[in-house]
Amino acid sequence: MISNKMKDLVAGSSTIRAMFEEGKRLSAIYGEDNVFDFSLGNPNVEPPEVVKNTIIEILSEESPNFVHGYMSNSGYEDVRLKIAEFTNKKHNLNLTENNIVMTCGAAGGLNIIFKTLMNPGDEVITFAPYFGEYRAYTNNYDGNLVVVPSNTDTFEPNLEEFENKITSKTKIVIINSPNNPTGVIYSEEVIKSLANILNKKQKEFNSSIYLISDEPYREIVYDDIKVPYLLSYYNNSIIGYSYSKSLSLPGERIGYIVANSALDDFDIFMQGLNVANRVLGFVNAPSLFQRVIARTLGAEVDVDIYKKNRDLLYNHLTKIGFSCVKPNGAFYLFPKSLIEDDVKFCQDAKKFNLLIVPGTAFGCPGHFRISYCVSYDKIEKSLAAFDKLAKLYLV
Amino acid sequence: MISNKMKDLVAGSSTIRAMFEEGKRLSAIYGEDNVFDFSLGNPNVEPPEVVKNTIIEILSEESPNFVHGYMSNSGYEDVRLKIAEFTNKKHNLNLTENNIVMTCGAAGGLNIIFKTLMNPGDEVITFAPYFGEYRAYTNNYDGNLVVVPSNTDTFEPNLEEFENKITSKTKIVIINSPNNPTGVIYSEEVIKSLANILNKKQKEFNSSIYLISDEPYREIVYDDIKVPYLLSYYNNSIIGYSYSKSLSLPGERIGYIVANSALDDFDIFMQGLNVANRVLGFVNAPSLFQRVIARTLGAEVDVDIYKKNRDLLYNHLTKIGFSCVKPNGAFYLFPKSLIEDDVKFCQDAKKFNLLIVPGTAFGCPGHFRISYCVSYDKIEKSLAAFDKLAKLYLV
Repeated sequence: MISNKMKDLVAGSSTIRAMFEEGKRLSAIYGEDNVFDFSLGNPNVEPPEVVKNTIIEILSEESPNFVHGYMSNSGYEDVRLKIAEFTNKKHNLNLTENNIVMTCGAAGGLNIIFKTLMNPGDEVITFAPYFGEYRAYTNNYDGNLVVVPSNTDTFEPNLEEFENKITSKTKIVIINSPNNPTGVIYSEEVIKSLANILNKKQKEFNSSIYLISDEPYREIVYDDIKVPYLLSYYNNSIIGYSYSKSLSLPGERIGYIVANSALDDFDIFMQGLNVANRVLGFVNAPSLFQRVIARTLGAEVDVDIYKKNRDLLYNHLTKIGFSCVKPNGAFYLFPKSLIEDDVKFCQDAKKFNLLIVPGTAFGCPGHFRISYCVSYDKIEKSLAAFDKLAKLYLV
Repeated sequence: MISNKMKDLVAGSSTIRAMFEEGKRLSAIYGEDNVFDFSLGNPNVEPPEVVKNTIIEILSEESPNFVHGYMSNSGYEDVRLKIAEFTNKKHNLNLTENNIVMTCGAAGGLNIIFKTLMNPGDEVITFAPYFGEYRAYTNNYDGNLVVVPSNTDTFEPNLEEFENKITSKTKIVIINSPNNPTGVIYSEEVIKSLANILNKKQKEFNSSIYLISDEPYREIVYDDIKVPYLLSYYNNSIIGYSYSKSLSLPGERIGYIVANSALDDFDIFMQGLNVANRVLGFVNAPSLFQRVIARTLGAEVDVDIYKKNRDLLYNHLTKIGFSCVKPNGAFYLFPKSLIEDDVKFCQDAKKFNLLIVPGTAFGCPGHFRISYCVSYDKIEKSLAAFDKLAKLYLV
């Protein structure tokens, strides 16, 4: 008796659920220490100590009805202003609290953007490999997801294919850099090219095409690589940010949207976000953590811990014969699977208690994703299992 | 360039926004102390002290990656189990963690229920006066809200009208008791009648009709009145609960759904809620407050403070000529306006710095809502303003 849309979604989500159950089953048999679950993007690095201290500080200093009460559906004005000022300094911009809406993480943020912009039949373009939830978010508002096939040598966007796929129905283009699942960061040149193509196509179709950057991994960056700030390159630009990874707070659902003042219909767009936050049932981003954010701007988890994980795993896998684009950000590796059938490959990996996700789940078959947001010890211990897996095919 | 649906929603929400702006404008002119803002349902009674102490306890006892991390999209299993056990004791039931999904407040809960159940064109029945958001939630999933006109003598459901409005397209019936905006609590007899009618109609149409009780005010009850627990009366029953009012935590977005095990397609319905929580972007209810709830079950705000407010305001208003059903719960009065045009009446009230909401906003013209979740002092000070307002019409 559930809805037709939901029937499909429940059926489609059974793979991930099955993997989760498989992990529990294997742990019960072999002990948790001997199961190498690289399937989840759940940060293992601790939140910076200042988060805990700030929560306690707020609870002792501020009125509980203020800290836990309703505010504007867009979030506390002073919190939004502080984020705006912090961002202005960092990226040389002129944002105010009116450019910002506090959201329930990036997932909540993307949903209220989609809800605000999309009519049924509108097209959302993304680049493979892509975060599978984009398909669900697009489906929520009866749009069609258009996937630009992957450029598997570099995992940078295939710009010609992109240009060809833009139509008069294109409403949104969504990018994710640093990327889940590849860890690749788009260069300034790539962002400029995307902007040029979009500007050209907007003129051609006399339309507004909104470029959204989904940035939960913005701070998880290695080797001093810079992540270009989208608002400096394109007028119809919107960023969905989350503190899930930068502060290791994924369960708290705290993030924000920042939109370019030069956006077409900026005022009504921002009002739309405010109303969408309310009517979709978020109402507002969790209040205590809004206040925590305002007091801890600039705090970050220790990214070196992820970097060490990356280096250990990347060096070992490439040594034993895996081919992999070296990622500069996020906490994922996305190597080629050793056989074409990535689903079978990940199935085989379970024989060695390795839980990894097929690239097919990200619209990019022939690859697999390793989430290395687990302990260094666990990764060290898992290397022998990867050796055994490789031997299945390479010997 | 925003979506057509959102254009309408933004236009429709301008009344409330205008009132909010008006409040700020009046406060700037007359001082906050001299403006009587009864327009918002933002609790003023402090959360019980145990909430603060429990947060600090959790932060010192548990691992931060556990407290702030991802868990199942349905919420921590141990938290759900504790809520189930607590509810079993209170209402003599046999719930387990599998009956419960933790949600971003009741608003988030209702949205994932609607998302899980509704196909486009499905009908949702509610009773006037009703919480205006039900219309937006129904619209989110392309359903049609069917309103049973109000029984303004008692504000209990008009059962004959209800029976007549049920069709083969009726998927959901939503009630809200204690009620916003009337404060009325449905008796056991009323709940039994609703169940009887629904059972009869399910047979007639060979359909499943889900009865949802939206219960953020369950604990805000006066005079020892009992609120019947829906799950004991009807198989296809679901409760959307929130701690927004019982613990004065509206900004934190914490609540849960509990569904009857006897529900048609129970298993797939619960899976649907889990997936809907994820794809709508809630992902999960905020994690720290899930853990707070598990440790503070049974804690409640001091309801006597609201009761004193109710008595002061109810007694004075009825004394000076207002007609009003005496509410047994929630923190609202819903008197008749002194002229038929409730919108003009509320406009007139602003002359005396009184901010009140027209009944039209709740599908019940000729009335107005007073939110008395403000300080006793403020209410005392406002009585003279109500006197002046009444004199406009009664002299």
